[in-house]
Amino acid sequence: MKIKYELVKKDKNTKARYGILYTNHGSYETPIFMPVGTQATVKTLSPEELKEVGSAVVLANTYHLWLRPGEDLVEKAGGLHQFMNYDGPILTDSGGFQVFSLAKNKKKDIVEEGVHFKSHLDGKKLFLTPELSIQIQNKLDSDIAMSFDECPPASADYAYLKNSVERTLRWAKRGLAVHKNENQSLFGIVQGGAYADLRKFSATETVKMHFDGYSVGGVANDGESKEDMYAAVDYSIPYLPEDKPRYLMGIGEPEDLLEGVERGIDMFDCVLPTRLARHANAFTRKGKINIRNAKYKEDFTPIEDTCYCYACKHYTKAYIRHLMVAEETFGSRLLSIHNIRFLIKMMEEIRLAIQKDTFSTYKHEFLEKYKGVKND
Amino acid sequence: MKIKYELVKKDKNTKARYGILYTNHGSYETPIFMPVGTQATVKTLSPEELKEVGSAVVLANTYHLWLRPGEDLVEKAGGLHQFMNYDGPILTDSGGFQVFSLAKNKKKDIVEEGVHFKSHLDGKKLFLTPELSIQIQNKLDSDIAMSFDECPPASADYAYLKNSVERTLRWAKRGLAVHKNENQSLFGIVQGGAYADLRKFSATETVKMHFDGYSVGGVANDGESKEDMYAAVDYSIPYLPEDKPRYLMGIGEPEDLLEGVERGIDMFDCVLPTRLARHANAFTRKGKINIRNAKYKEDFTPIEDTCYCYACKHYTKAYIRHLMVAEETFGSRLLSIHNIRFLIKMMEEIRLAIQKDTFSTYKHEFLEKYKGVKND
Repeated sequence: MKIKYELVKKDKNTKARYGILYTNHGSYETPIFMPVGTQATVKTLSPEELKEVGSAVVLANTYHLWLRPGEDLVEKAGGLHQFMNYDGPILTDSGGFQVFSLAKNKKKDIVEEGVHFKSHLDGKKLFLTPELSIQIQNKLDSDIAMSFDECPPASADYAYLKNSVERTLRWAKRGLAVHKNENQSLFGIVQGGAYADLRKFSATETVKMHFDGYSVGGVANDGESKEDMYAAVDYSIPYLPEDKPRYLMGIGEPEDLLEGVERGIDMFDCVLPTRLARHANAFTRKGKINIRNAKYKEDFTPIEDTCYCYACKHYTKAYIRHLMVAEETFGSRLLSIHNIRFLIKMMEEIRLAIQKDTFSTYKHEFLEKYKGVKND
Repeated sequence: MKIKYELVKKDKNTKARYGILYTNHGSYETPIFMPVGTQATVKTLSPEELKEVGSAVVLANTYHLWLRPGEDLVEKAGGLHQFMNYDGPILTDSGGFQVFSLAKNKKKDIVEEGVHFKSHLDGKKLFLTPELSIQIQNKLDSDIAMSFDECPPASADYAYLKNSVERTLRWAKRGLAVHKNENQSLFGIVQGGAYADLRKFSATETVKMHFDGYSVGGVANDGESKEDMYAAVDYSIPYLPEDKPRYLMGIGEPEDLLEGVERGIDMFDCVLPTRLARHANAFTRKGKINIRNAKYKEDFTPIEDTCYCYACKHYTKAYIRHLMVAEETFGSRLLSIHNIRFLIKMMEEIRLAIQKDTFSTYKHEFLEKYKGVKND
């Protein structure tokens, strides 16, 4: 079965929307935040811990799994769900973003057929095409697959982007043509930088291909400004159908989740909560804190009094700080649990606010308190 | 309350004994294997996971906690149990072994008062004395503390060892004199290398001080032969009282657990199961295997069919291999769970065998299958 999106309620004051995503692995309310399990594991966490924090869909990276352990092995294992022991929905990206961000020395050669580049692991020459990306994802057997797109750099000019958008459309069509997995949905990706006409063109043409959902891409690049990101969403959303889910790729800062939801986005993913954890950072309602800070040395209170995650229920800042200073991985694990729970809880509150038509107030009040302070 | 040991049943054919250890944090059957949580965390694992594998007592290292985060901080946190969220019994070692094995450049200056050495973390000059070791352990508030002893090198000659044994006795007396924690038991440590008369002397004199339990020390040094280790136990045990627990420090190889139990040992600890896990090794009934081995690449069976640990219930060798190759810590976590469970299960079987007077048969059959193969 393909996924189905049900739009339940629109916010009265913004474009925010509350809906339900029906999948082969359960039904989930949207807007939703999806943690990332790059290599078929959300770093440091078990599937049970993901469920305990209220996590539903997880993302896995096609590029990484293509290189290791290989899609054929995952297929032999019975697909990603069985391989990684996760019975919730799994979304795989196309590999496109990694090719453009991780390729060795950042060098790649984009041709009509696909992209030539070298492995970030061993420098081996690789060639990824729209067809191959879909074929890999078919074998991985994720619930949702993504079309292979070009992710142009933030510095790309209009002429470059115009060409790129057209190629991405041709690639989307080619991917669609080889997509064979009946139980896997396929999303199209809208590109076009921060140009209104390119986004409109990309969205309109992509929608004509009747994908199961649509993503706003090209917004998580290095050097991309927040204004350009919000513009990209604003310029894309009006041309996307209301009865399909909309996914903003690679975005996880709390302020960006709020901006995305306000503009009509239903799905988000980001490595941020787990990456922050490994760098000893924790989300709090007052902004990010760095638990290694000396002021937490004798702080025998939880990361947040108002959080009921496993880390906050049982452990103090002083203990987690000790673990991080002593380089014990249980520390990153506790911080990962807390950080993912923080974003999931935020989305729970956002969904409630949309249902009560109080999203704007919620956003305002959240941002009032949340300073986004790094390394306090 | 101090711990209490109840000898329930002696094996008819060997010195193996089945008993119960009553502590302030529950009662547990012996012989027992205790995993090591060096820095107030058993590497990669949560307290809940330790309980799930049937683990009871965990060991924490006084030397490491003295340096980081410091015993005063742990005391302020309410003691080790509260600090690390572990409500089972905790045993702390004296720091003696680490001073002798971890001191920067392995240099130390042993004087009557204590040991001068440099921190393995930053080279800072440190001075640990029998009194300080006990005072630190009092503050850590473990259930069982160990006397501060000298751990002589495996190469030490008779004259050196005789002096060392005498000093360790003086140190034991000094530690006992300052031990103030009413809820903490204190164990004495028998030294004397592989010399029968020194072990007898050390054991006899240590027992005169009326400790709550006795440890056979000096057996886990680099270069110590298995024969010397077994001799050290054989020469010590006859002089230890039957109504107190006997602890063989730093031993965790399955064959050594069997040899230790056979000689009358009740308690064992070792970093082996978690250290092996970090190096991708797993215990099996047929010996150790290295999960990175190419032959497990497409092995979709658990580490052991007959093991019911979380790792074996839900994950395949192929997946765990992938995690270890991809350097994902969830891999070490799964292997740690399995390896600790392996030793705990072994001890469960050993206890049953003692109760049925079949320990010798059990040992023989276990070793027949268990080859102890490294890196198959």
